Amino acid sequence: MANPKAYIFDVFGTIVNWRNGVASVCAETFASKNIDFNPHEFADLWRGEYQPAMERIRSGDRGYIALDTLHLENLNRVLENVGLLDKFNNQERQALNKAWEKLPGWPDSSPGLYALKKKAIIAPCSNGSIALMTRIAKFSDLPWDCIVGAEIAQNYKPHKDAYLKSVAALGLQPEDVMMVAAHNDDLHAARKYGLKTGFIPRKTEYGEGQAKDLEPNADWDIVINSIEQLAEIAP
Amino acid sequence: MANPKAYIFDVFGTIVNWRNGVASVCAETFASKNIDFNPHEFADLWRGEYQPAMERIRSGDRGYIALDTLHLENLNRVLENVGLLDKFNNQERQALNKAWEKLPGWPDSSPGLYALKKKAIIAPCSNGSIALMTRIAKFSDLPWDCIVGAEIAQNYKPHKDAYLKSVAALGLQPEDVMMVAAHNDDLHAARKYGLKTGFIPRKTEYGEGQAKDLEPNADWDIVINSIEQLAEIAP
Repeated sequence: MANPKAYIFDVFGTIVNWRNGVASVCAETFASKNIDFNPHEFADLWRGEYQPAMERIRSGDRGYIALDTLHLENLNRVLENVGLLDKFNNQERQALNKAWEKLPGWPDSSPGLYALKKKAIIAPCSNGSIALMTRIAKFSDLPWDCIVGAEIAQNYKPHKDAYLKSVAALGLQPEDVMMVAAHNDDLHAARKYGLKTGFIPRKTEYGEGQAKDLEPNADWDIVINSIEQLAEIAP
Repeated sequence: MANPKAYIFDVFGTIVNWRNGVASVCAETFASKNIDFNPHEFADLWRGEYQPAMERIRSGDRGYIALDTLHLENLNRVLENVGLLDKFNNQERQALNKAWEKLPGWPDSSPGLYALKKKAIIAPCSNGSIALMTRIAKFSDLPWDCIVGAEIAQNYKPHKDAYLKSVAALGLQPEDVMMVAAHNDDLHAARKYGLKTGFIPRKTEYGEGQAKDLEPNADWDIVINSIEQLAEIAP
């Protein structure tokens, strides 16, 4: 395998613990309003709206809209579904939506990225917007060299544009770039479009009962247990 | 003045010494080919093609093309004009074009940006591409939070899109963002579109005989002598 010149990363789940981060902000907000609702369950319901919202854009049914806006639309839907919509005014819903900016990195993410940055270009290739990725990076000290992904591509993973326009924005060829993710589906798409692939299991992304993505389901170019390990083995 | 939430920077001239950087690579390349041509003069001729090339895109005469490609086209034109085109094959011209990736920061740039990054979002708002900005940042240790500018906007400064689409990509309003530049023209445009403005003179950007941009020519929101000073005074 030729040495990757850049490593691009899925972020939600792979680099940060979105579920605990969102649940933590929800718990505070609910407490302040005397709302009795399990914050992790709420985070799961909110995340459950993620793929359907993006699918409308991937399918061409709707033009590109940044994930921040989709998150807000999804929040409104979930609040309505669980009978809490009237507890929040517009401003309060916008404030709660910023939960997605306050996502803690997994313990190995920040030190691993600092080490890897000395060897290659590192960038998120996430469905999050540039604004969102910037704020998560500030919150969790993620020293990205630049931000590529959905906003650069104006489309969402696993649409091919999200990979190939990101690679093009880096000024590289697909075979020069490794996609690193905790999700096999993301890597199947990346491989299909010519990128190298690195799998990192995050077995509690969805909590203790997680059933998916516990193991690699294909012969990915590398499988690692931490970003720190990736930085060690990277040439 | 409300506190800026982000500082965005011109790069060529403001953060890096493009003239010495380009001349340095040209000097090495010319020496290896026994070419007797003043490398600083060559850098000036190359940079002289910069505005006309972008103007075709700003005017709508040509679609957006990344600066890396414009630099290569401009290199070919300059080599032809000075009678050196036949000394370089395609591959050698592409290699020489990478001079623009090896631009040294002014001495205050890297430490100043590290300090400012603790207080606000920092990003280049340059006419350089994401790929080019990424490589310059690696070369000169510029710890950007993200990269905005021409590629995000698909147009070149001082076109309004270069400022307003950059601000939008940061998830902010124009009045929340300060444009910092060594060029008065850049700041006139930024102010016209509602951004705050910071001027930093770089009196030797064009060498010892520089006649332009030695002083602010309007009442910019701040005038600083170094990025380190900016970091100190930033709220």
